[in-house]
Amino acid sequence: MPRTLCIEGVVALLGGRLQGGNSKTVIVAVNTLKNAQRNEISFLTSQRYKQDLFHSHAAAVLVSESIVSDLECDQAVICVADPYLAFATLQRYFHPNLKSSGIRHATAYIDESADIADDVDIAAACVIAAGVKIDSGTRLEAGCLIAEGVHIGHECLLHAGVKIEYACKLHNRVIIQAGAVIGSDGFGYAWTGQKHLKIPQVGCVVLHDDVEIGANTCIDRGALSDTVIQQGVKLDNLIQIGHNVDVGPLTVMASQVGISGSTTIGKGCQLGGQTGVAGHLTIGDGCQIAGQTGVIGDLEAGGVYAGMPAVPHRMWLKTSALVMRLPEIWKKIKKIP
Amino acid sequence: MPRTLCIEGVVALLGGRLQGGNSKTVIVAVNTLKNAQRNEISFLTSQRYKQDLFHSHAAAVLVSESIVSDLECDQAVICVADPYLAFATLQRYFHPNLKSSGIRHATAYIDESADIADDVDIAAACVIAAGVKIDSGTRLEAGCLIAEGVHIGHECLLHAGVKIEYACKLHNRVIIQAGAVIGSDGFGYAWTGQKHLKIPQVGCVVLHDDVEIGANTCIDRGALSDTVIQQGVKLDNLIQIGHNVDVGPLTVMASQVGISGSTTIGKGCQLGGQTGVAGHLTIGDGCQIAGQTGVIGDLEAGGVYAGMPAVPHRMWLKTSALVMRLPEIWKKIKKIP
Amino acid sequence: MPRTLCIEGVVALLGGRLQGGNSKTVIVAVNTLKNAQRNEISFLTSQRYKQDLFHSHAAAVLVSESIVSDLECDQAVICVADPYLAFATLQRYFHPNLKSSGIRHATAYIDESADIADDVDIAAACVIAAGVKIDSGTRLEAGCLIAEGVHIGHECLLHAGVKIEYACKLHNRVIIQAGAVIGSDGFGYAWTGQKHLKIPQVGCVVLHDDVEIGANTCIDRGALSDTVIQQGVKLDNLIQIGHNVDVGPLTVMASQVGISGSTTIGKGCQLGGQTGVAGHLTIGDGCQIAGQTGVIGDLEAGGVYAGMPAVPHRMWLKTSALVMRLPEIWKKIKKIP
Repeated sequence: MPRTLCIEGVVALLGGRLQGGNSKTVIVAVNTLKNAQRNEISFLTSQRYKQDLFHSHAAAVLVSESIVSDLECDQAVICVADPYLAFATLQRYFHPNLKSSGIRHATAYIDESADIADDVDIAAACVIAAGVKIDSGTRLEAGCLIAEGVHIGHECLLHAGVKIEYACKLHNRVIIQAGAVIGSDGFGYAWTGQKHLKIPQVGCVVLHDDVEIGANTCIDRGALSDTVIQQGVKLDNLIQIGHNVDVGPLTVMASQVGISGSTTIGKGCQLGGQTGVAGHLTIGDGCQIAGQTGVIGDLEAGGVYAGMPAVPHRMWLKTSALVMRLPEIWKKIKKIP
Repeated sequence: MPRTLCIEGVVALLGGRLQGGNSKTVIVAVNTLKNAQRNEISFLTSQRYKQDLFHSHAAAVLVSESIVSDLECDQAVICVADPYLAFATLQRYFHPNLKSSGIRHATAYIDESADIADDVDIAAACVIAAGVKIDSGTRLEAGCLIAEGVHIGHECLLHAGVKIEYACKLHNRVIIQAGAVIGSDGFGYAWTGQKHLKIPQVGCVVLHDDVEIGANTCIDRGALSDTVIQQGVKLDNLIQIGHNVDVGPLTVMASQVGISGSTTIGKGCQLGGQTGVAGHLTIGDGCQIAGQTGVIGDLEAGGVYAGMPAVPHRMWLKTSALVMRLPEIWKKIKKIP
Repeated sequence: MPRTLCIEGVVALLGGRLQGGNSKTVIVAVNTLKNAQRNEISFLTSQRYKQDLFHSHAAAVLVSESIVSDLECDQAVICVADPYLAFATLQRYFHPNLKSSGIRHATAYIDESADIADDVDIAAACVIAAGVKIDSGTRLEAGCLIAEGVHIGHECLLHAGVKIEYACKLHNRVIIQAGAVIGSDGFGYAWTGQKHLKIPQVGCVVLHDDVEIGANTCIDRGALSDTVIQQGVKLDNLIQIGHNVDVGPLTVMASQVGISGSTTIGKGCQLGGQTGVAGHLTIGDGCQIAGQTGVIGDLEAGGVYAGMPAVPHRMWLKTSALVMRLPEIWKKIKKIP
């Protein structure tokens, strides 16, 4: 049964301050200002979208202190410190995580030697190989392929067709989107003079607590020691993480980023989409790297970077603007004898 | 049994004008000028490849009016308005779409509550969850994973290992290449001050009529409302489409393009490979964007763009050329006191 | 049972020269200098890491002649021509390829008409369609989907969830990482004036001996003739190979590279990550192309290239450096009346 909450319940949950409206109105969902219906709540994160508010059918709206002062509208206004965070919290109330209930689909294959907690869900066409251990509360959607010796922690969620290769380890509350590959061989060869000799990749991949991995993203296993994704890291879709990379806690990468082997990414970094980082580098804590950046050297902590090769973002803005003025520069240069 | 067509049948099908050759010769296949055998037909789309024609064993060749006038060759020449389109049409005659015939492989799992038209083909190891609806003429190749509440229209073709997640909707004649993921969670988090709080992604993905999605491409479900791929859009392999993106009708994207969340792409656009488009942007109708472009602002309809950041293509050509002359510029600059 | 080797056995295997240490010490594994335990061997490939050697617990270390002369350490030192190659060889000794043993998992579906050598391993949830031929010594991990008419040679290894589409051909000792798609449709359409008309893609993909394909990499089938990956090519993860591409022997591509249709890549080339190559081009033998390069014209054999558009690497270094000096140039330019 879908959850509901009256406006005063919303305030109780989020801790905000209510202004106007009927506190008993029942809210059934969160929606955008444009699409919200009469029994829905919405949110306003920027002055830019104020116009949408006047036309909205929403019963209530989450706004910040800085906006609320000059607000005249029909909706119940709930003033909160961070409307986007309040929206997220409320949305999580309306859409709680599904609980596992111990379903083992008849078409799933589970090796006898696997050690699976009673309440783990294993959907159709999953394959659980020998020696796998899966802890309580975890759910596997259809077609997940879990190789020998893998350990999956508590309350993880693996979407359809995820592949976890030999002996990799997922800690707790890890979410993996469909089609992702955890533990493919690192790209390691030695040149013999005649051919590329494959080097066995004997490290694993370790995904720490609260990591999320995007759809069809690939994380290579380490060559000797492990590839490590630290606690709270969020990786978007189609990302490549090379062997022996170490991604620091809470770092976030947008889709199609590629990190080459043995690079260390600091804590709390943000990498824009399609950025590439060369191998054996060190990216300091808290770096912000724009999309399509090409990182070919170490980056200092706390910096903001862009460009190929990566330079401080301010520098990139300046030089990019001047590249556009090259025709003008050229015109003047031609005058010089 | 493979289809055949005599040369006069080819002319009847394509509506061209025949010159030379034997109209009764039987054609069994289309091939390149270089590889064509005696009972095959080929095509010439550019003066550049004329030389290949003289050495070709093809029985007949499709050419355009502009080329045919000064053509001297042994082959039957069929003059058509657009030889490439004629080639496509003929190739479709020789290789018609397979018809579905109602095959349900014994190893497929189909939930009792699923509503599947009689003639739908479901190959080995597919999983069809509860509440799925699949319309007439659709074919699923091996290992497709179709989640709860998905609706797949008429005459769709899903290649091996395609994953369609919860409640997504495919209209008619949609083709999805192997390994693609439709409906993975959008990349949405709110920062609590301590961690990235996942925002439930409760929108869906809608693929309209005649859409084709490439291998291992990922299309994220919307955060609140849907991610929409309009009629006739063709997406190549390994593309990322973020949550709440709207791709306009007939737009084409080459492989490895990435579109960030909430961006709207117009009708009839062409995006070159590895191009990235930032979030919350509007790309006008008919834009042509070169490969590896980085789009970080809105683009006007009908423009041709390149570079990072994207600028009009003409501008990019000019500035790129001048970047190559920077050593020359530098030399002269040094003379200035 | 894990393999072991005493130091004198290591020397016998690798053909090096031993200096110091106890030749009877038993070695159980290779490891990095930092992580090595007392019964492990390590390797030193650069003077830069010499410091690590002094703190290492390794029983022995592989070094090159140029380093060994001034080396003072407690370890047994084995002097070899190429320590990295020696490491690779030794690692292969400790981790030999698994031999296939004729396992056919009960949950795999194998069509009656398939011709599978007795000793081939087929893991859980694999699907082997009609007319497939698999030669001796090959191993398929869980969930591989092999379409009609595919031929897989001797001693190949397909990781979990690999998809091989209709009639594609793998020669011998081919390795394919998880989730890769071999033989998806090429991206070919003809414009009718109203819509993009799909052109049936009737060529195949041929992977020659000793090719390795990375996780979630996609190789499109040819439009008319085949897409060909020559002997010894190594492709990393998430790479896109368009239809009718021909990749020359021993060429190596890092992850997320994209090669557009009908391009020919020479022998022994190296392509850095996220590089894109446009269609219908010819890349000469032995080209080295930096990461994120955009290749939009033919490249001469033996060159080193970078940039978008690609230019000789030396040129790119020079112009990139000068772009950073544009503020300086601009300052001087403003003085010119």
